[in-house]
Amino acid sequence: MGESSQLTLGLLGGTGKEGSGLALRLALAGFAVQVGSRTADRAVARAAELKGMVEAMGHAARLTGNENTQVAASSDLVFLNTPFPHAAALLEACRPAWRLESVVVDVTVPVNFETGKVQLEQPDGASGSEFLARRLPQSVPLIAAFKTIPAHLLADLHSRLDCDVFVCGDAQTAKVRVMEMASSIEGLRVIDAGPLREARTLEHMSALAMQLNRRYKIKAARFRVVGV
Amino acid sequence: MGESSQLTLGLLGGTGKEGSGLALRLALAGFAVQVGSRTADRAVARAAELKGMVEAMGHAARLTGNENTQVAASSDLVFLNTPFPHAAALLEACRPAWRLESVVVDVTVPVNFETGKVQLEQPDGASGSEFLARRLPQSVPLIAAFKTIPAHLLADLHSRLDCDVFVCGDAQTAKVRVMEMASSIEGLRVIDAGPLREARTLEHMSALAMQLNRRYKIKAARFRVVGV
Repeated sequence: MGESSQLTLGLLGGTGKEGSGLALRLALAGFAVQVGSRTADRAVARAAELKGMVEAMGHAARLTGNENTQVAASSDLVFLNTPFPHAAALLEACRPAWRLESVVVDVTVPVNFETGKVQLEQPDGASGSEFLARRLPQSVPLIAAFKTIPAHLLADLHSRLDCDVFVCGDAQTAKVRVMEMASSIEGLRVIDAGPLREARTLEHMSALAMQLNRRYKIKAARFRVVGV
Repeated sequence: MGESSQLTLGLLGGTGKEGSGLALRLALAGFAVQVGSRTADRAVARAAELKGMVEAMGHAARLTGNENTQVAASSDLVFLNTPFPHAAALLEACRPAWRLESVVVDVTVPVNFETGKVQLEQPDGASGSEFLARRLPQSVPLIAAFKTIPAHLLADLHSRLDCDVFVCGDAQTAKVRVMEMASSIEGLRVIDAGPLREARTLEHMSALAMQLNRRYKIKAARFRVVGV
């Protein structure tokens, strides 16, 4: 296993579909993964269930569960996996937990489905990621990643991801750590999508993929860059 | 040749790199193509040059040149290929030329490079396509397409396009005509990207591709949807 597998990855709101799928793929890549939830009990139960799924594939898994703020305090990379409307409050609750080296990985997409359509929101005129980054201490960088990878696909361990993962952010060292981590996941190619303002592009692409899923009656539309 | 090759396609601002590349690919697909420019002489010369390039590949080509408003008046699908800042004025100049069945295909992307970076603009808070659609008579639909296909690639007839072309618009019949036309181009798969407001997504993707070209020192970053 590479050095990167020494990292502990925490998933805030990791018991939902997106978070669980990501937890599975990260555990399969050899990382120690902490699944977070509002209550430790729920997180522990979900982690055990996910661990069983990875082991059923014949792989070892380091998967544990804990309450969200505990996960934030004890992870190197902290994934934000809640629905977007809950993300800001969750970051606020985690404020005492951040360490000097904490990096937040924002996987959220600010969409709502209230009108029956996929509607992309623009909180305070910015991307969701820029909006959330402003709610962190300046010393804690936020990197956007995995926004365009369908939750359904992540959770289906029998399907190859077979696509690109776009990573963007303004803190270069943190971005490189996230890119290295992402490159250990089977079936993903990492694309450096530039500064954090490019999160807007990734959110648009994610919303387009959700619309394509509906229009073409599929479940896992995603993207690959040709020519790189 | 299919029925679609009966269409006459006009390219406003077709003497530039993007327009010329598109003209070549459309002529290769068997369409009658009119290259437009501000002066007929320049358009005629460019059309002859492009015709020679297609014929050198061993294919027949129906490629002629004319002044922009003449092209608009005598084409079934009218491509808008000028740099974005000139597009609104060009549409204004073409106002007397529109016919009952005219369809405008907007290929432009509202980017500027003044700061040395790829900067996406949001004219009047909208996508470039929505901004331009408002400058057409209500009876003339505008369909966004080809925004994410690199000009460099279109112009290089020895390279396969090998990517998706995203088409969006609000006028369903016109959109289907554009999708059918685009599907006759070798190496392209057509994706219905939804209503015209999705042009914003395509413009973001195009700007991202331009940035990837710079970052990865390549020339033709483009997209393919996986899972459709």
